[in-house]
Amino acid sequence: MSVDWLKQLAAVLPPEGLVTDADVLEAHRRDQADWAPAGVARALVRPSTTAEVQAVLRVASAHRVPVVARGAGSGLSGGANAVEGCLILSLTRMNRILELDRKSLFAVVQPGVLNGALKMAAAEVGLWYAPDPASWEFSTLGGNLATNAGGLCCVKYGVTGDAVLGLEVVLADGSVVRTGGRTVKNVAGYDLTRLFVGSEGTLGIITEATLRLRPRPPKATTLVASFPTLVAAGAAVIDIVADTRPSLLELMDRATVRAVEAHMPLGLDVDAAALLLARSDAGGEQGVAECARMAAVCEAAGATFVIQSSDEAEGESLLAARRFAFLALEKQGTTLLDDVCVPVSRLAELLAAVEHIAAERRVIIGTFGHAGDGNMHPTLVFDRNDADEVARAQAAFDDILRAVLDLGGTITGEHGVGLLKRPFLARQLGAETTRLHHTLKAAMDPLGILNPGKLL
Amino acid sequence: MSVDWLKQLAAVLPPEGLVTDADVLEAHRRDQADWAPAGVARALVRPSTTAEVQAVLRVASAHRVPVVARGAGSGLSGGANAVEGCLILSLTRMNRILELDRKSLFAVVQPGVLNGALKMAAAEVGLWYAPDPASWEFSTLGGNLATNAGGLCCVKYGVTGDAVLGLEVVLADGSVVRTGGRTVKNVAGYDLTRLFVGSEGTLGIITEATLRLRPRPPKATTLVASFPTLVAAGAAVIDIVADTRPSLLELMDRATVRAVEAHMPLGLDVDAAALLLARSDAGGEQGVAECARMAAVCEAAGATFVIQSSDEAEGESLLAARRFAFLALEKQGTTLLDDVCVPVSRLAELLAAVEHIAAERRVIIGTFGHAGDGNMHPTLVFDRNDADEVARAQAAFDDILRAVLDLGGTITGEHGVGLLKRPFLARQLGAETTRLHHTLKAAMDPLGILNPGKLL
Ligand SMILES: Cc1cc2nc3c(=O)[nH]c(=O)nc-3n(C[C@H](O)[C@H](O)[C@H](O)COP(=O)(O)OP(=O)(O)OC[C@H]3O[C@@H](n4cnc5c(N)ncnc54)[C@H](O)[C@@H]3O)c2cc1C
Ligand SMILES: Cc1cc2nc3c(=O)[nH]c(=O)nc-3n(C[C@H](O)[C@H](O)[C@H](O)COP(=O)(O)OP(=O)(O)OC[C@H]3O[C@@H](n4cnc5c(N)ncnc54)[C@H](O)[C@@H]3O)c2cc1C
Repeated sequence: MSVDWLKQLAAVLPPEGLVTDADVLEAHRRDQADWAPAGVARALVRPSTTAEVQAVLRVASAHRVPVVARGAGSGLSGGANAVEGCLILSLTRMNRILELDRKSLFAVVQPGVLNGALKMAAAEVGLWYAPDPASWEFSTLGGNLATNAGGLCCVKYGVTGDAVLGLEVVLADGSVVRTGGRTVKNVAGYDLTRLFVGSEGTLGIITEATLRLRPRPPKATTLVASFPTLVAAGAAVIDIVADTRPSLLELMDRATVRAVEAHMPLGLDVDAAALLLARSDAGGEQGVAECARMAAVCEAAGATFVIQSSDEAEGESLLAARRFAFLALEKQGTTLLDDVCVPVSRLAELLAAVEHIAAERRVIIGTFGHAGDGNMHPTLVFDRNDADEVARAQAAFDDILRAVLDLGGTITGEHGVGLLKRPFLARQLGAETTRLHHTLKAAMDPLGILNPGKLL
Repeated sequence: MSVDWLKQLAAVLPPEGLVTDADVLEAHRRDQADWAPAGVARALVRPSTTAEVQAVLRVASAHRVPVVARGAGSGLSGGANAVEGCLILSLTRMNRILELDRKSLFAVVQPGVLNGALKMAAAEVGLWYAPDPASWEFSTLGGNLATNAGGLCCVKYGVTGDAVLGLEVVLADGSVVRTGGRTVKNVAGYDLTRLFVGSEGTLGIITEATLRLRPRPPKATTLVASFPTLVAAGAAVIDIVADTRPSLLELMDRATVRAVEAHMPLGLDVDAAALLLARSDAGGEQGVAECARMAAVCEAAGATFVIQSSDEAEGESLLAARRFAFLALEKQGTTLLDDVCVPVSRLAELLAAVEHIAAERRVIIGTFGHAGDGNMHPTLVFDRNDADEVARAQAAFDDILRAVLDLGGTITGEHGVGLLKRPFLARQLGAETTRLHHTLKAAMDPLGILNPGKLL
């Protein structure tokens, strides 16, 4: 039976498009979410055209073979993890930028194009592709779309979904739909583009995307401020977003600052409760003035130390601490990077709740993230060989999600549900909204072959 | 039978919530799209709570009565027009602002709140609700959401959908779902929020919305430029959006300028092929500088006349021509306001195509609109009592939509499909995408009671 569908796949793909080698399958088995389980795939397909993707899905539908789409495998929720006996559908060979329209400000790309490759191509014609997950150098645009990836610039420029004009998607039955278009406004029919964005490979395979480009923003002015209490830092964030338009507004808590300082001494204030990093890209005098306004807000909120710079190199070095945050925490043990989001006014409460949970569960938790969006990454650090510590980390992870829901937040701001958050989704959505999810999934993928067991 | 369901409605609604008076029904029969057909409703319901909306939909489902949601009835596509024998579900009594969180920058509103009422409430606490359809003073937020309304500020701040964090929606069967939440980022599950936004009352009834507020932008600097050719105006628009971030970028063609000048002499250049109006709200020196950059771009593109002002009153008077555009065209006859959108680089071609169609079909067409988004409103002016002229206008309307599709555009940028554009939707979407629309509609509204015959 399985031989049968493999034969059919071989008939519709070039030789290099179908791989069953166990080592290769093993290498494509997981994403970066260590905790999430992964099955063993039966084969890996590497189509290079939409027609090949269609052919693969027709075979998969005919034989009810689960299909797991995969970009770079940099996901943090287990979304791209293999399902037992599945076909891994890698989009990395579909990696061409098909069009770059510098007048209408869009690019048409295949899903395997790296985020960084599009950024570079746009920059070559003086334009900018805004979405900037920290994984921009190695994650694919298809993966960014399927997870609705966020990043540092979202606070001003929005998430991946905000940069999409249209998609080409192959459905479970092999049919191809085109959603949206090439225009920045479009209300012809339902917003199917946004339905596929963030659907984590469970509703269709994205085979092409029309993405919005922007004029490049002016050079940024950077600010760092340290706060004696979480409440003070939270108050500063509230006042900054209510008064200015930062192009970046990041926060690191004490545990994270200490991890960074241990990893790479930067002279950070290790006694501060939190460090805030902000940028204005309003440009020129205006940028300096906006940054000064943010600095004044920080001081009024009780910052003990504020430094600003309009020099690009210096600005980058001020951000270095934030860029090393995750790496520094990883040096301290096994990490589980969480991703939660609350209304900005609840940020201080979230940070306090996480500190409380860390103390109670005796787990190191370093929290950093996109403060301006209320989107934080509490990162649990533990010893994976210590069963008790693992259990406490698991309990702390659950506690955090519960706390976030109590604060009116969401269990995932940008990394997606995948496998990691699946047990919590229904709790957030409630019974009727969960049912509507199942209704849509059943309507669009009646055989349930697309990334089964993920998200829902 | 019909008495039966009316009785059941009467049992679940307060007396003022159910109206069958023929005059009242007649007054709620149509929106502002004169051309679209309208049936005769059987009753009007005016619920004041979500529970009442649920009760109404349960009765409607039980008896398969079509339900047409209605906000202010200011729509321009026939979306709110009565369907024969339907229940009109007016949301205007659900008009409370439930919450306004100035720290987390959102408001929770009922669907019947006017756009202008939210703008005002936000302004009172120093904040801003950005979406600004020209109908902001009298259209409802529920209608804005159901049509994904646009406006003048979209070029910088996006459309209504970009300002929505979450919704409460009553489905056809009377169940209630909550989508999204209160956070600015959220990838927990499918983006159902965007699926309901723009769905024109065909998938569910929006009973509550959590909308994003922003800091108020600085005062704007305004620019007006006149161009000898459409190509020159189009080139200026391309260069402006590639180089700056205008907070408004509107265009009026010669026919519109002449209509305005005839209606109210403002001293406009009636020989110019097009007038461009732009604004920068970057603020202070930066705003002036950005406006100067736009002015330089206009001059380089061949503008014959450019004027700028940072004075607010003067800025408003420079915009007056644009604000009177539709009114002025209406003075010349019956109007049919079209709404199409093309990639910005195709704007000049679109304008030329419309001019060509106007000449060929011997219809006056004044075109104005949101140039920065490529979203134009060719407005047909004709004598509704002259059958031949009506036929030529209808032919011109069809020609324009065909031309737009040839230019890679969309048949509607902000007004919606409703009844007016329905015959063209499948042509734009293609067979498989249309089929997916029907699949979703059937899954979410299996009895087909929600605004039947609209959009799809
Ligand atoms: C160091 C590091 C930093 C990170 N920083 C960020 C960050 O700042 N913000 C953020 O949001 N994420 C971040 N991530 C997470 C991750 O990079 C993103 O989720 C990214 O979008 C995944 O892209 P990918 O190509 O690796 O997709 P994968 O991991 O391969 O897949 C992700 C999901 O998308 C599906 N999928 C992939 N391609 C397609 C397709 N073409 N069609 C349909 N479904 C598809 C998969 O089935 C899976 O469910 C980070 C990860 C790492 C390791
Ligand atoms: C002078 C004028 C200027 C305009 N300018 C603009 C403009 O600049 N930009 C723009 O986009 N539009 C504009 N419009 C069109 C119109 O105002 C918008 O479409 C507006 O969003 C409609 O709101 P409404 O409350 O009048 O909705 P209605 O016309 O009553 O309804 C519109 C659609 O939404 C559905 N609906 C209404 N409420 C709900 C609900 N609670 N739940 C589900 N479905 C619902 C209806 O069934 C219908 O399909 C203009 C109209 C006029 C008359």
